[in-house]
Amino acid sequence: ASKRAVESQFTFPAFGCWVNIFEPAVAELVGACGYQYALIDMEHSPVTVDSVLPMVRAVQLGGAKAIVRVPEKQSAWIGRLMDMGVDGIMVPMVNNAAEATELAQATIYAPEGTRGMAAGIVRASNYGLNTAEYLQNYRDNFMLIVQIETREGMEQAEQIAAVPGVDCVFIGPSDLAGSLGHRAQPEHKEVRAAIRQIYKNVKKTGKPVSTLNFTSRNAKQLITDGFDLVFSGSDMTMLSKALQQDVANNQKIVQGLVGSK
Amino acid sequence: ASKRAVESQFTFPAFGCWVNIFEPAVAELVGACGYQYALIDMEHSPVTVDSVLPMVRAVQLGGAKAIVRVPEKQSAWIGRLMDMGVDGIMVPMVNNAAEATELAQATIYAPEGTRGMAAGIVRASNYGLNTAEYLQNYRDNFMLIVQIETREGMEQAEQIAAVPGVDCVFIGPSDLAGSLGHRAQPEHKEVRAAIRQIYKNVKKTGKPVSTLNFTSRNAKQLITDGFDLVFSGSDMTMLSKALQQDVANNQKIVQGLVGSK
Amino acid sequence: ASKRAVESQFTFPAFGCWVNIFEPAVAELVGACGYQYALIDMEHSPVTVDSVLPMVRAVQLGGAKAIVRVPEKQSAWIGRLMDMGVDGIMVPMVNNAAEATELAQATIYAPEGTRGMAAGIVRASNYGLNTAEYLQNYRDNFMLIVQIETREGMEQAEQIAAVPGVDCVFIGPSDLAGSLGHRAQPEHKEVRAAIRQIYKNVKKTGKPVSTLNFTSRNAKQLITDGFDLVFSGSDMTMLSKALQQDVANNQKIVQGLVGSK
Amino acid sequence: ASKRAVESQFTFPAFGCWVNIFEPAVAELVGACGYQYALIDMEHSPVTVDSVLPMVRAVQLGGAKAIVRVPEKQSAWIGRLMDMGVDGIMVPMVNNAAEATELAQATIYAPEGTRGMAAGIVRASNYGLNTAEYLQNYRDNFMLIVQIETREGMEQAEQIAAVPGVDCVFIGPSDLAGSLGHRAQPEHKEVRAAIRQIYKNVKKTGKPVSTLNFTSRNAKQLITDGFDLVFSGSDMTMLSKALQQDVANNQKIVQGLVGSK
Amino acid sequence: ASKRAVESQFTFPAFGCWVNIFEPAVAELVGACGYQYALIDMEHSPVTVDSVLPMVRAVQLGGAKAIVRVPEKQSAWIGRLMDMGVDGIMVPMVNNAAEATELAQATIYAPEGTRGMAAGIVRASNYGLNTAEYLQNYRDNFMLIVQIETREGMEQAEQIAAVPGVDCVFIGPSDLAGSLGHRAQPEHKEVRAAIRQIYKNVKKTGKPVSTLNFTSRNAKQLITDGFDLVFSGSDMTMLSKALQQDVANNQKIVQGLVGSK
Amino acid sequence: ASKRAVESQFTFPAFGCWVNIFEPAVAELVGACGYQYALIDMEHSPVTVDSVLPMVRAVQLGGAKAIVRVPEKQSAWIGRLMDMGVDGIMVPMVNNAAEATELAQATIYAPEGTRGMAAGIVRASNYGLNTAEYLQNYRDNFMLIVQIETREGMEQAEQIAAVPGVDCVFIGPSDLAGSLGHRAQPEHKEVRAAIRQIYKNVKKTGKPVSTLNFTSRNAKQLITDGFDLVFSGSDMTMLSKALQQDVANNQKIVQGLVGSK
Ligand SMILES: [Mg+2]
Ligand SMILES: [Mg+2]
Ligand SMILES: [Mg+2]
Ligand SMILES: [Mg+2]
Ligand SMILES: [Mg+2]
Ligand SMILES: [Mg+2]
Repeated sequence: ASKRAVESQFTFPAFGCWVNIFEPAVAELVGACGYQYALIDMEHSPVTVDSVLPMVRAVQLGGAKAIVRVPEKQSAWIGRLMDMGVDGIMVPMVNNAAEATELAQATIYAPEGTRGMAAGIVRASNYGLNTAEYLQNYRDNFMLIVQIETREGMEQAEQIAAVPGVDCVFIGPSDLAGSLGHRAQPEHKEVRAAIRQIYKNVKKTGKPVSTLNFTSRNAKQLITDGFDLVFSGSDMTMLSKALQQDVANNQKIVQGLVGSK
Repeated sequence: ASKRAVESQFTFPAFGCWVNIFEPAVAELVGACGYQYALIDMEHSPVTVDSVLPMVRAVQLGGAKAIVRVPEKQSAWIGRLMDMGVDGIMVPMVNNAAEATELAQATIYAPEGTRGMAAGIVRASNYGLNTAEYLQNYRDNFMLIVQIETREGMEQAEQIAAVPGVDCVFIGPSDLAGSLGHRAQPEHKEVRAAIRQIYKNVKKTGKPVSTLNFTSRNAKQLITDGFDLVFSGSDMTMLSKALQQDVANNQKIVQGLVGSK
Repeated sequence: ASKRAVESQFTFPAFGCWVNIFEPAVAELVGACGYQYALIDMEHSPVTVDSVLPMVRAVQLGGAKAIVRVPEKQSAWIGRLMDMGVDGIMVPMVNNAAEATELAQATIYAPEGTRGMAAGIVRASNYGLNTAEYLQNYRDNFMLIVQIETREGMEQAEQIAAVPGVDCVFIGPSDLAGSLGHRAQPEHKEVRAAIRQIYKNVKKTGKPVSTLNFTSRNAKQLITDGFDLVFSGSDMTMLSKALQQDVANNQKIVQGLVGSK
Repeated sequence: ASKRAVESQFTFPAFGCWVNIFEPAVAELVGACGYQYALIDMEHSPVTVDSVLPMVRAVQLGGAKAIVRVPEKQSAWIGRLMDMGVDGIMVPMVNNAAEATELAQATIYAPEGTRGMAAGIVRASNYGLNTAEYLQNYRDNFMLIVQIETREGMEQAEQIAAVPGVDCVFIGPSDLAGSLGHRAQPEHKEVRAAIRQIYKNVKKTGKPVSTLNFTSRNAKQLITDGFDLVFSGSDMTMLSKALQQDVANNQKIVQGLVGSK
Repeated sequence: ASKRAVESQFTFPAFGCWVNIFEPAVAELVGACGYQYALIDMEHSPVTVDSVLPMVRAVQLGGAKAIVRVPEKQSAWIGRLMDMGVDGIMVPMVNNAAEATELAQATIYAPEGTRGMAAGIVRASNYGLNTAEYLQNYRDNFMLIVQIETREGMEQAEQIAAVPGVDCVFIGPSDLAGSLGHRAQPEHKEVRAAIRQIYKNVKKTGKPVSTLNFTSRNAKQLITDGFDLVFSGSDMTMLSKALQQDVANNQKIVQGLVGSK
Repeated sequence: ASKRAVESQFTFPAFGCWVNIFEPAVAELVGACGYQYALIDMEHSPVTVDSVLPMVRAVQLGGAKAIVRVPEKQSAWIGRLMDMGVDGIMVPMVNNAAEATELAQATIYAPEGTRGMAAGIVRASNYGLNTAEYLQNYRDNFMLIVQIETREGMEQAEQIAAVPGVDCVFIGPSDLAGSLGHRAQPEHKEVRAAIRQIYKNVKKTGKPVSTLNFTSRNAKQLITDGFDLVFSGSDMTMLSKALQQDVANNQKIVQGLVGSK
């Protein structure tokens, strides 16, 4: 029987890894390492649905939840990705409750929602092997995460979080910094204050809050501060740093050789 | 000379197969088996234009018409797929004549329509080998199928079907059932009545009507009822059923072994 | 943690499915349906290592063992596929103990065998997460299946099966029939006698014996006859049959229409 | 160090080649031949972001600027392609200053623009190696080209060109012809007059003007007329013509043989 | 019904095109243009079986015979490609009758030959739709072309050509030139003499002879000289030449501009 | 003009990175970081020629030399990869001078060598743009690296290195350890002694020697010891380590939370 969805509950606090290297081996490794979540990023990666599915399979085979960030705030992505059997979807730049509501409805079949019905053939139901069960549980085993990362979103944080079907709010420091006039300064005190404000207002609704590591706010602090889902890792960032360190080390070795001559 | 478009006329009654397995071998087999139409489904499959083209070629090489269902009701898909040389396009969730009109216009070059012109280089004209001929016949050799599968669409069925450039109406039982409040019950009497009503109203316009097999409405009944294009097959459903039967049979064999010991 | 290799033991009697449709959705479905083994066929499919890996992942995620049949009897395939983390490898046209020995050695690291060492980075060890464990268990969790399907192989069956590292023998009826002068007649009495003889001689060594369904020898008979691993299914055959039946049915419907006019 | 972006300035007059054959070897050849620009066309080619990136790399490795024409006038494409490190983007069917403004804003990070921030990990910054430098120069090393190819666009040409962030205007003769009621007649005198008018009005803003070869307006004339960036080549057109000539020649040879018998 | 194999006979004299651009659009165009044969080259292209199949389909859909040149003189390629439904195979560097015999046997099922049997599921038989017919005709509808392009091959030309199952001999001028000590001088008189000698000796066996265009020996001369199958075109060569001419023309235009200032 | 081959000389001492993540973004990053060489590994990666070429392009665009390790010691790989324009090839398990000689000959065109000629169309010559220049310099701009990693190879090290056309010798510690009876113990004193002996014997021939980092022999020591080309990095190893550290850190954070309650 399928090894997917063995542990369907989403438990917190939890850690995740950002995945921007579109090679299933990396996705599988991220899952196998022990992260509970992998965020497969379509917004800032040159990929679309057909490249995402092998990543989703690899993350799930590795043992983590596969969350896909869609490239844009459009409902059409939701049904296609849910049909593919992702464990969750993250949507960037959600600015108000109306947008959040439209997205949430796209996760639900008619008549309550707007999702198109093909439960009998898609991967989400094991290609029809588990259709009845899927129609029962599909929404409980899926997490819709909306990103708040603009001034408008900040001001509407509580209303956005309160929308039924919004399962988690992710605070995006970089775009929030830009929106507040502090481009590339996510550590700016106004940005930090904004993050705290969003956090507080989302928490009023009881919904879990998520964010990612940043220079001055490491995973430990974020968990201590009460964040429920912390993206502590980023495959591309980690790999790039490691490569740069190794090259720097090599350059010192060669300079040492030259110097000693 | 190219083996495409030998028999360009669309004749009815006809049968088609739903294609959700994105492997050109399957697409070619579907065509070679004798189906007249293959519906390559982008709405509930994790694919985009680059994965669809090999499927289109394989269906056409197999000898069937390649109809592509687009993932969403947006005109931008129309021109891209027509350039690729598909034989037809199916659009989901068409709710009224205005939507149908916009889609129909997207199939036609300016000034009458809104399709962008690149007839000299695209596959549809054999990469420019048959540009003049293509500009003459392109619309006659192409079929725009709109799906009616919501309450609103049902109420506007005649107006939708009457739109010039709408070549066929497909009635989608599953989503129609959901829209009418009977999720996953396409056999519900209200759904059946709705299908009959849509059928009748489309037929007033003289346009062909299409649908697919469902539990209680097999291909024979649908053809007898007057449907012009019946999708009797579904690759994923058929394969899944056959595999499940074989596994069930295997389990009986093993139980027999155990029992007989 | 990774969901692979949860149940690492190979138990018999067991059933498998032949996979010639190179679409991971199908591979995943085959596993999820309940087959214990999936035979991913490279010998008669237009694929190589990069297309095989997504199939292997999908089979394993579905919950079955992924056995890959290599395109030719060459040791170089063995190490590459083992590095990829397949559960087993089937090799066609093994004719004698010397060939079997060379293949068996290719499954084992030096100094006993000839397999190249990269256990620290390959998928088989979860990309280095489980290197030590992998070096301990890699051979126990892997099955080398050799095909006997020629007259020479038939005459050497016992010696081939007795080679240490040969974990299972698969009897290939079609090629055996050809080799014995009865092309395309796997039901010929000489072929059936040859199969019985190979079966008996392999069984002397205590090794499991495998084969696939054929017209007159269905899964039940094969299991009753003592075969340990029976490939009862074939995705392409099943799909093709189902499509042909549906088309035949459609043709009857249309003829009925014509006849009744 | 990376060989990209060595010569970041866009100089004129310059020549480009239209790329509709989606094989990186062709893209690399186009660059290596000496064209300064390659226009990778997504509007009339069956491709999306994942197939475009290998083309972009190949063009840049060949030594040309990689400009991508997006399939539709939607801002979401802009950020994704800029993240991929393209040298420019061309947008079809821009009709007025409001549309041009929205596109231009999509090229700029907040707070001035609407582009999402991921400069630390994307290809555009060499995966974070050159983030600071990229944030400094990203806009100077990038060219936004809008297409004017409708009557409405023609009438708004000066206003469109004047939009800050519009770096170049491309006049599309084929669609302009259609829009003016002269489908497939880009040589029609009204179309030629329209092109002259657009040209003149764009030039008032000082922005460079681009177009492509057409039957009666070859590269020499276009450069003489003052066009800054002329697309003189088209891979598909050139290849198709060469193949057709060769086949025609072959047919003459055979007819000669027949005739001489 | 499948559009393949409509005209299964190989007729001469005939023309072909060499295909080194691995984009099915180009392959389809080559067929559609009117070439009777397309040579899909694996020897000097970075491709393997999975990239070749879409090319084969495209060539056949275009209306030409798809001949694949294998990367090396190894029998294992033969069965895999025949299973894929190619119309012919070309093998490089065949030096003597023994090599030719081994290759020819690999095209034939046991017991006469060594090809493995999977006729019931492979593309060659339309995935089992036409198995019986395929087993009847498979060899007649397939052409094995061996290349003679070494001194040893030259000396054994008649014996190679006489091997049953060798259906055509292709003389490779470039490698023959190298082998005779005149690298990159296929026009050298010794090379020309060698070609004539091979031609004459092959003709003694009645087998058709093939070659490709070279500077001083154009298609007309080759056909006049009696060659049966002339590869007059080469997609990469033609495209490269056309691009280079256009760039050269552009450079003249710019120099004219500069000169006139 | 093409940005490849700007600096064609191979200079030492130099550093390289092992590439087992088959995603061109990673390959490009490796080059851009400052490594002089990237070793794209086919031996222990599930890839073949068509997946390797995008990696080669990405490495070269990043600014490093692209060396490809072939999956097995077979000459057929050499020509295909050289045609693709790789900067070098590494061959595993070279055991004696005869094997090295055969490989070296495969890098050279006839009559001196055995490489097939297609210089006019392949990537190596910029698809024919630089054919004459390529025929002049192709061998100087290419590096053949043979691996010594068996007892037999060790004993023949000087003879192997002395073969003309062998440009560099790579000592493989892992397989050498296995071959000497110390599987997975590359630090064993006998293995270290063997490495020193091979190093010394190769150096007698004046050829550069290469190896990779190992636990107790870091890049600094290897350079100090006189190795010319040191592979200090490995993308998969580095990424895996970084991910594991982050997960371990996360687990501590959670345990701290639990402990503090
Ligand atoms: Mg953001
Ligand atoms: Mg629907
Ligand atoms: Mg066999
Ligand atoms: Mg246009
Ligand atoms: Mg040759
Ligand atoms: Mg090794």
